[in-house]
Amino acid sequence: MPHLKPVFEQVDSLQEKFIKRLEEAVAIPSISSEDERRPDVVKMGHWLANQIKALGGTVELRELGKQPGREHLELPPCLLGRYGDDPNKANVLIYGHYDVQPAQESDGWATNPFKLSIDDKGRMYGRGSTDDKGPVLGWLNAIEAHQKAGVELPVNLIMCFEGMEENGSEGLDDTIRAEAKKFFKDADVVCISDNYWLGTEKPCLTYGVRGCNYYSIEVSGPGQDLHSGVYGGMTHEPMTDLVRVMNSLVDPDGKILIKGIDDLVAPLTDEEAALYPPIAFTMQDLHESLGSEVSIFDNKEDSLKHKMRYPSLSLHGIEGAFYTPGAKTVIPAKVIGKFSIRTVPNMEIDAVTELVEKHVNAEFAKLKSKNTFKFNMVHGGKWWVEDPNHPNYTAAAKAVERVFGVKPDMTREGGSIPVTLTFQEELKKNVLLLPMGSSTDAAHSINEKLDKRNYIEGTKLLGAYLHYVAGELKRSG
Amino acid sequence: MPHLKPVFEQVDSLQEKFIKRLEEAVAIPSISSEDERRPDVVKMGHWLANQIKALGGTVELRELGKQPGREHLELPPCLLGRYGDDPNKANVLIYGHYDVQPAQESDGWATNPFKLSIDDKGRMYGRGSTDDKGPVLGWLNAIEAHQKAGVELPVNLIMCFEGMEENGSEGLDDTIRAEAKKFFKDADVVCISDNYWLGTEKPCLTYGVRGCNYYSIEVSGPGQDLHSGVYGGMTHEPMTDLVRVMNSLVDPDGKILIKGIDDLVAPLTDEEAALYPPIAFTMQDLHESLGSEVSIFDNKEDSLKHKMRYPSLSLHGIEGAFYTPGAKTVIPAKVIGKFSIRTVPNMEIDAVTELVEKHVNAEFAKLKSKNTFKFNMVHGGKWWVEDPNHPNYTAAAKAVERVFGVKPDMTREGGSIPVTLTFQEELKKNVLLLPMGSSTDAAHSINEKLDKRNYIEGTKLLGAYLHYVAGELKRSG
Repeated sequence: MPHLKPVFEQVDSLQEKFIKRLEEAVAIPSISSEDERRPDVVKMGHWLANQIKALGGTVELRELGKQPGREHLELPPCLLGRYGDDPNKANVLIYGHYDVQPAQESDGWATNPFKLSIDDKGRMYGRGSTDDKGPVLGWLNAIEAHQKAGVELPVNLIMCFEGMEENGSEGLDDTIRAEAKKFFKDADVVCISDNYWLGTEKPCLTYGVRGCNYYSIEVSGPGQDLHSGVYGGMTHEPMTDLVRVMNSLVDPDGKILIKGIDDLVAPLTDEEAALYPPIAFTMQDLHESLGSEVSIFDNKEDSLKHKMRYPSLSLHGIEGAFYTPGAKTVIPAKVIGKFSIRTVPNMEIDAVTELVEKHVNAEFAKLKSKNTFKFNMVHGGKWWVEDPNHPNYTAAAKAVERVFGVKPDMTREGGSIPVTLTFQEELKKNVLLLPMGSSTDAAHSINEKLDKRNYIEGTKLLGAYLHYVAGELKRSG
Repeated sequence: MPHLKPVFEQVDSLQEKFIKRLEEAVAIPSISSEDERRPDVVKMGHWLANQIKALGGTVELRELGKQPGREHLELPPCLLGRYGDDPNKANVLIYGHYDVQPAQESDGWATNPFKLSIDDKGRMYGRGSTDDKGPVLGWLNAIEAHQKAGVELPVNLIMCFEGMEENGSEGLDDTIRAEAKKFFKDADVVCISDNYWLGTEKPCLTYGVRGCNYYSIEVSGPGQDLHSGVYGGMTHEPMTDLVRVMNSLVDPDGKILIKGIDDLVAPLTDEEAALYPPIAFTMQDLHESLGSEVSIFDNKEDSLKHKMRYPSLSLHGIEGAFYTPGAKTVIPAKVIGKFSIRTVPNMEIDAVTELVEKHVNAEFAKLKSKNTFKFNMVHGGKWWVEDPNHPNYTAAAKAVERVFGVKPDMTREGGSIPVTLTFQEELKKNVLLLPMGSSTDAAHSINEKLDKRNYIEGTKLLGAYLHYVAGELKRSG
């Protein structure tokens, strides 16, 4: 890839301009979950569209209508853009978002969250710096560096930048579905830069996320809350029953006790097992992020497997019981336990739910309680896993080696990123998560930041990826 | 008891005056738990003292100083009164309280809570009507009826009326202790009218209350709440551990699973068992008050025994976990389970706590969890039981038969009334609970009421009791 050298040189010499670009973006408080900030989200969409146009791209600000359930609000536009339309080049669909999480200096920020503040170690603090304005601008920076270097972009870019990611991605799935065979129809692969390295030194490629089935179980009996002195001992207490059923779900070592769940989990292949040892992650990293040493496993591999490729079950809490500090001698009349299962291949949403429902009903029946039991699925989102040997991934791995001099960690996320699955299912194309930021970036927290190194080298990475993916796709097909 | 007839006739003919007296008392919103109502509590104390003086009694308004922990508030006075000082007569100590629970029409009252409102069925609605202004005034009414009938009171009365009962009885225990060998030293028996019949038709005498040991158990681990997607499966989750320990405490039929607790419970004697069958109470009554049919036992006797003379354990809730409606994918970092045990003879507070602590520590140890476990006793109050064959009780039973034509139910309360134990322990005298109101009076709730029948016949009962207790005490010794 001889073309990359001049591009990288341009990235280095343009870095002040790129940081200025990020500074302008961070200054627009595009918080999608706050009504009064909605105009700023729209403003940010227009600012971004203008940036794309200034670089010679085309862009439609697709209006999505009113926000469901909050009809006094217009959804911010989804940007559908293109850069390049050479029919001889591969087409790479890139996704990102231009809205941000809420932030106020009074939350505990050390600096104004909407003024990019750079410290002497090159940490660039500001809301949206790493999630996801930095990565989105990384694509534009890469285009600009190519232009300045006089190097042609080796692929056409199809862009999808939404403004509601931090507020449920309202309207996005409909747009993807509607455009799958239109605006997105030529996409050969999908690349998303909206997650993080596992640590701070080594980049990763993310090829899967777990799904999440969220359930509630309700036990009710008495017509109203009762005094435990007056009624305790003569009454079937809903809390006693609920705790019994919740107790039957998982053991203290995280083993799910619902019969049949294990049988749904895809066996670990040797090839897959080989991905874990090289990952740059230590038990000390884990203990630091946990804030204590309460890890179940004493080794990195088991810990990562149980985060990335095995299911887990967490008990979140109980609605309807006494929850404040102090003492209250109440027998709650109706209590609702909440728990969720993180799902992995090949656990289908409905198959899991069937097992869970059967299990909790059987456990409640064992109690021979006169109380009433109800099972409810709150929401379900499927896992997503890609083939990490696809050209999309081998290209990204080569780009990482070129820019950072190391092979990337191959990771899966324990949490969910629903858009990955939507693109995979609607477009039937390989989806790659190619993160720019590191594990210490504090996305969603106070003092969110993006390191200058991650922004600048990450811009090179995105640019290099486009060259390698063009080559890999040509080679493979 | 030939003297009772003219007294009863006076009660009947004075009933409008007695209702007027209650109306005046209810009109003073003596809410002890609301700072801004404190002057009304004091006003009520003075009003009551003046009523006693007007009848020829003496009364000291004992100042109790500042309220502990809320030093900007003066405690309302404790009224220490006397009526009669004939050294040849027995001395009966009567206790009651002149403060009330909070009440606002906007809470859902059908009438102004501080204006006594009488409906066509003789239900007298108003805050404090049954708890405890009606019963306290019942004693004064009885004195007045004796005076009007020209019948001498057969005993001397020693009065203790406090103004903080609905706010922790601050200052009362100290007063009782300080005066046990002074102002209260001549008391032969104690009578308290501040609880309720089991139903609506048949009076009861209450000879015991359960105690309450309240505990919390805390499980903590992670340094902060965690995302269940990112950490679920690799982390010892405090909720899983806590639910396991809570699950080990009690079974769905209310059986306490803590080893050794059963051994502390006094065996049921034949004599005691014989008290249950005559009690006017049905399973239908129970189901009505529960608002459903979730009773553990299918018969009255077992139900009552498990409310009155067996211990119970209730799980109240969990602090620190997710408790609102909806879904949150959180692994709570620190959760605190709350439960309490209702205690009965011969369960000593410390002996129970020792067994509980041993049990929960052993259960947590079984989990082999890396989380941290803490046991804590929140508060402990001992049970109180009297000998129901004491002359104090036989006198009250005779008074009930005389006024109502039935033998009273002999009951214990499932909840606690701490003052009973303080009088018993400090004065070493028999304490009797002689209620005036019925189970439907809604003390502490909206639309609190006292039926005219309970107030007027209850006044006769209190008067008759004084005659019978004078007789029984003389006879017994």
